[in-house]
Amino acid sequence: MKNLLGRELPEYIEGYGDVNPFEGAFSNMESKAKQAVMVKPVTPGDQKLYNSLEEVLDKVELKDGITISFHHHLRNGDHVLNMVVDAIAKRGVKDITVAASSIFPVHSPLVQHIENGVVTKIVANYMSGPVAKAVSMRRLKYPAIMHTHGGRARAIESGDLHIDIAFIASPTCDEYGNISGLFGKSACGALGYAVPDAEYADTVVAITDNLVPYPNCPIEINQTYVDYVVKVESIGDPKGIVSGTTQITKDPIGLKIAKMATDVMMASGLVKEDMSFQTGAGGISLAVAAELREIMKKQGIVGSFASGGITGYLVDMFREGLFRNLFDVQCFDLKAVESYASSHKHMRMSASMYGNPHNKGALVNNLDIVILGATEIDTNFNVNVTTASDGTIMGGSGGHSDTAAGAKLSIIVTKLTKARLPIIKDKVTTVTTPGESIDVIVTERGIAVNPRRQDLIQKLKATNLPVMTIEELKEVAEKITGTPKAIDLSDEVVAVVEYRDGTVIDVIKKPL
Amino acid sequence: MKNLLGRELPEYIEGYGDVNPFEGAFSNMESKAKQAVMVKPVTPGDQKLYNSLEEVLDKVELKDGITISFHHHLRNGDHVLNMVVDAIAKRGVKDITVAASSIFPVHSPLVQHIENGVVTKIVANYMSGPVAKAVSMRRLKYPAIMHTHGGRARAIESGDLHIDIAFIASPTCDEYGNISGLFGKSACGALGYAVPDAEYADTVVAITDNLVPYPNCPIEINQTYVDYVVKVESIGDPKGIVSGTTQITKDPIGLKIAKMATDVMMASGLVKEDMSFQTGAGGISLAVAAELREIMKKQGIVGSFASGGITGYLVDMFREGLFRNLFDVQCFDLKAVESYASSHKHMRMSASMYGNPHNKGALVNNLDIVILGATEIDTNFNVNVTTASDGTIMGGSGGHSDTAAGAKLSIIVTKLTKARLPIIKDKVTTVTTPGESIDVIVTERGIAVNPRRQDLIQKLKATNLPVMTIEELKEVAEKITGTPKAIDLSDEVVAVVEYRDGTVIDVIKKPL
Repeated sequence: MKNLLGRELPEYIEGYGDVNPFEGAFSNMESKAKQAVMVKPVTPGDQKLYNSLEEVLDKVELKDGITISFHHHLRNGDHVLNMVVDAIAKRGVKDITVAASSIFPVHSPLVQHIENGVVTKIVANYMSGPVAKAVSMRRLKYPAIMHTHGGRARAIESGDLHIDIAFIASPTCDEYGNISGLFGKSACGALGYAVPDAEYADTVVAITDNLVPYPNCPIEINQTYVDYVVKVESIGDPKGIVSGTTQITKDPIGLKIAKMATDVMMASGLVKEDMSFQTGAGGISLAVAAELREIMKKQGIVGSFASGGITGYLVDMFREGLFRNLFDVQCFDLKAVESYASSHKHMRMSASMYGNPHNKGALVNNLDIVILGATEIDTNFNVNVTTASDGTIMGGSGGHSDTAAGAKLSIIVTKLTKARLPIIKDKVTTVTTPGESIDVIVTERGIAVNPRRQDLIQKLKATNLPVMTIEELKEVAEKITGTPKAIDLSDEVVAVVEYRDGTVIDVIKKPL
Repeated sequence: MKNLLGRELPEYIEGYGDVNPFEGAFSNMESKAKQAVMVKPVTPGDQKLYNSLEEVLDKVELKDGITISFHHHLRNGDHVLNMVVDAIAKRGVKDITVAASSIFPVHSPLVQHIENGVVTKIVANYMSGPVAKAVSMRRLKYPAIMHTHGGRARAIESGDLHIDIAFIASPTCDEYGNISGLFGKSACGALGYAVPDAEYADTVVAITDNLVPYPNCPIEINQTYVDYVVKVESIGDPKGIVSGTTQITKDPIGLKIAKMATDVMMASGLVKEDMSFQTGAGGISLAVAAELREIMKKQGIVGSFASGGITGYLVDMFREGLFRNLFDVQCFDLKAVESYASSHKHMRMSASMYGNPHNKGALVNNLDIVILGATEIDTNFNVNVTTASDGTIMGGSGGHSDTAAGAKLSIIVTKLTKARLPIIKDKVTTVTTPGESIDVIVTERGIAVNPRRQDLIQKLKATNLPVMTIEELKEVAEKITGTPKAIDLSDEVVAVVEYRDGTVIDVIKKPL
């Protein structure tokens, strides 16, 4: 079976089930039911606080086949996932599904649990490091499932991803389960990715290394969602949680791309009063923000909001009055954490509010411009940010597909070649984001506009920008690098890539 | 059939269904399912904004038997309920259930729709004025249902009260449905009672007289819950929405009661560091707050939180550092609105977080002390705040039963006689709050402690306070007023009084 993008898909995948093929970014938008949540009511006088993880594990229902979930706000400093999976594994529980919003190199101990069959399924929006490698090599019993940030919220809310127990790393928590990420030694800021887990899991456990007096105001996730609170020594390593500062690229090629991307934004007509904008924390993306900042200042433009993972750079723009508001699903650096703690115009949003396609309008629907990266792009503008050129998993959509689908203008900024390989190919190794959501690709050697956007092509033709077809851009790249040979892949599916609406946009196969 | 309190109940009530008798404040606490919400996804580019209510009514599904809901944050200044019911009635829709969190005298036009059979059921937590009178006279086709504030949230979340369309009066709203009560000519502050409606109704319509630029930060109810936004001329009359200031009683008897209630609080041992406290906006209740304020200042006590409908008086205590936080389900005056807008330690809570007994721990569970009023009290400490001495509805639980159930110490402050009638009776006209939740009754002539609280009786005996049995207190009252004769009631049920857990604590019968 093939989906709309021509990707070959099995009709059924063991451990996953029937495959619903991707049929277009907004083809699956009829009325949807959220799952009916079961709640164990808490009576006055009931205690939620326990002094060790073991005590809590004695209380919750552990059984083979259980799904446990984690958020990734502690990023590569997270101690909680390993701590919990180790403890559950020690109890002899098998066939565990680990549903983590993202998995990082710090989670390498998970590989052992994969190897010995304790963890048989992984669900994540992003994966890098040893776990990603193990999944790519089909060490997991069943294929992993890769979601987008909004798609994970959708899957949880719909019940497609039913969580038995959510373990929520909590930089601060009180004894009744009011959680905040704002303060404490493991402060990470907004906890947007943990919200669907807290709202929809059967059982919710807050794990904190910083128990504070009741009530832990301002609250991000409140007591009505939390069954148990446990105090542990450490939930994370601050060095891995937030970076001190996020940096603009100093590379002249990167700066050139940023300048060109800004020219595209200007030509589009979207840089104007009330504009909204999102960009990542990468060096080129931040350089685009820096260019935009100067233009907004010069022209006296005040935007409505900037969104996403929030960086100090966007906070600076917010504080200068260039954006009236920030919408924050996760804080990338300490300046973002501080800003969120100090202004009610810097608002937290849940993963669902950020990107769930099946609520009544996610924030991405309100985005004018998003700046995104790419590992590979095909001539239909499909983008891969999931697998490396050797076919192994080294990332995932995160908010890529969500923002690209929602924004009026989605721009990919990338160097034309990376590690002597061309970015543009006939066929990407994995489709993460469908071409229909991508408007423009900006490289140092040229700009390609999606033919669906004839309006934009016309506007760009009136500029000096080096606009060409994507085929032409591909040729330019291949003149430098030569045509790369295709990777050899087996037929074994190691991961299912779900589009944000729950259909399958691609499968990842084990490299030979 | 009789419930635990000996109240005679029908087993089945036409238009209500089977009656589950009240069996104790915490007898119905097994695992509960929330209802599965249906959502119509919103695609980028879809418009939510309409310029008239009629346009929105053309879009939503109106049919006979529909349930429509409203919040009461605009209190006796609300224009929205009348506007919407009138418009729907004009379209010939019949058999409408109006589920309003409270109904005030301003809603008198509803009487006409009751009389002509357009509105056949009313669900509310509190009712006063002509609608309450009409309900009491059994003008409604079916009995009304009276909830507590937390019980309404429970009923909505569980699906016991399924809302087809929620109409949310919105002091400010943007075109994508982000709602706030903080600003604008109809500002009312926190919108806690509207949250369950927004989260669980099939269709949600925001009605505003103050459309603001996107995004309307800080957001109270966000865009992911709202289907339609409509701009109207006026949602309410500011004079009826919030009072300028809430006033402490000047009546010497009221002040005496407040002083005695404060002595009871002191004797209980609960007035100490980290204490939590709730009191209403009534004159005696505020006088208790004033007494407590002086003690806290003198003794250097800092409380954890004050909660409830928040008054300027509690804001003053918060600003003086006497409470670290405020939890606000509705703002009673403009000072409360301002405080909520300016401090993130003054937090909004939803009606569910406030009092729903079937979530994982409502805020009332964390209350140390609550000060409450009463219309009648029986010798089993059951309290009536729903019906007047002539048997007609003139109030309702609101948060009475919720806070009484949750708080460690619930104190009723009341004059011993009102309008020449004794407050304490053998049998109250209607049970609103069960005696098991009430700890102490404080009147100007004496204090009665619930015999369940032998610990408290011992503590109070060590003071000079005039502690007596409730029977003795009743005799004191009857010496002044004589024994009142019982009201004659028919067998016709005009309203079902649900306890917060959905069981029936009483029914209200039509006075003869």
